[in-house]
Amino acid sequence: MNNETINMSEPATGTALLSKSNPVFCCYLFWSSLLILKMLLMSLLTARQRIKTKTFANPEDLRVAKTSDVRFNDPNVERVRRAHRNDLENVLPFLLMSLAYVACGPHPLTAKLLIRIGASARLLHTIVYAVLPLPQPTRALSFFITFGIVCFEAIYVLIAAVKYI
Amino acid sequence: MNNETINMSEPATGTALLSKSNPVFCCYLFWSSLLILKMLLMSLLTARQRIKTKTFANPEDLRVAKTSDVRFNDPNVERVRRAHRNDLENVLPFLLMSLAYVACGPHPLTAKLLIRIGASARLLHTIVYAVLPLPQPTRALSFFITFGIVCFEAIYVLIAAVKYI
Amino acid sequence: MNNETINMSEPATGTALLSKSNPVFCCYLFWSSLLILKMLLMSLLTARQRIKTKTFANPEDLRVAKTSDVRFNDPNVERVRRAHRNDLENVLPFLLMSLAYVACGPHPLTAKLLIRIGASARLLHTIVYAVLPLPQPTRALSFFITFGIVCFEAIYVLIAAVKYI
Repeated sequence: MNNETINMSEPATGTALLSKSNPVFCCYLFWSSLLILKMLLMSLLTARQRIKTKTFANPEDLRVAKTSDVRFNDPNVERVRRAHRNDLENVLPFLLMSLAYVACGPHPLTAKLLIRIGASARLLHTIVYAVLPLPQPTRALSFFITFGIVCFEAIYVLIAAVKYI
Repeated sequence: MNNETINMSEPATGTALLSKSNPVFCCYLFWSSLLILKMLLMSLLTARQRIKTKTFANPEDLRVAKTSDVRFNDPNVERVRRAHRNDLENVLPFLLMSLAYVACGPHPLTAKLLIRIGASARLLHTIVYAVLPLPQPTRALSFFITFGIVCFEAIYVLIAAVKYI
Repeated sequence: MNNETINMSEPATGTALLSKSNPVFCCYLFWSSLLILKMLLMSLLTARQRIKTKTFANPEDLRVAKTSDVRFNDPNVERVRRAHRNDLENVLPFLLMSLAYVACGPHPLTAKLLIRIGASARLLHTIVYAVLPLPQPTRALSFFITFGIVCFEAIYVLIAAVKYI
């Protein structure tokens, strides 16, 4: 079934790779939405830590919080913020890279597997970093799974598009 | 007119959703360009604050500024940097999510409305955060409008693509 | 040869602009992969500086490093982190903006030139910021080349899509 769709949607021009008719692209849409939802959740986690520890960075936020000073460097807030920044540094490149990778028309099964594993590893990364800190190397491992997948995708695309350098 | 275009551009394959012939995609192009221009402007705002308060983070920048020490933590510089980081955390996910949403072929009027409101709210957010700090809840409100729209788009795409999980 | 491909892939609908059959898009794919690989490398550079200077921000990382305190604000680590953040603020908008620009069907030669120069300038920026700090204005120059290109692309797309505001 998948194979038929692919064969239909991948004529000589490859026009339909970034469209709903390509199951790999649909898989990408699903997992990228999940990752973006997760990234948004980091903002709420930060806000929860800010309210819990009364750590506000802007003077205009103090009135709401009934505290009298701006504060920085609360360790709980900073942990969530580091996790969030790590997302910016890794999830956004993963999303952009996977899109470029899907646009190159890779083998459907490989591509779907890479997207699923890469996205799941980032979900795990957030849990062991910001929600329930676990001893290393859990975080390093989940970090390097997605890291490796993005590298693989980048090298795949570099080779596929090298003549357009 | 819009409906005709959509009907024409959305045959069984949905090939043409990410193309100039889809008015929703054109609307996305317009507003995403505006948001990216605004994000670039944040760099200039930061530079202006750095020069005004002589707060430079790199030793090699000091010669240009005729000051003798690197400085950090100037409140004016930090405010613009927080606003900029907030953009990274929210505008980039908004742009990626809206692209995925448009690729799913949502109802054209709804989609255009969401893109317009989401982008406008971020423009407002920057003004009340970095240019003319206003008392809360102005900033919180403009933040949560875009936040809610990205959540809606993500859930829409998750449901539309759930069978490709 | 290029012109033929473009003419073939750009009928009235412009369907095929974001596809492998468009050489400009292929050029975009190549350079965006290179930039994303470079961004990932920043994580490794940060890790190298963290290990070299034993500056770890998370308590659970200490056991691995055989040090007893979390540390912040090491100047070598912070320099790489500033360079990385600068990438987030500029490379990601460059990638998203160039994608929108390619989707508008610009003149192929101009578009390819802008993508090549913009991406190369960011590669240079990283070298003179994080690897081999050079006196200004080398960094400022490489920064503003990409900055200007993104502005140009944004204004191009704004004008092309203005009637879909």
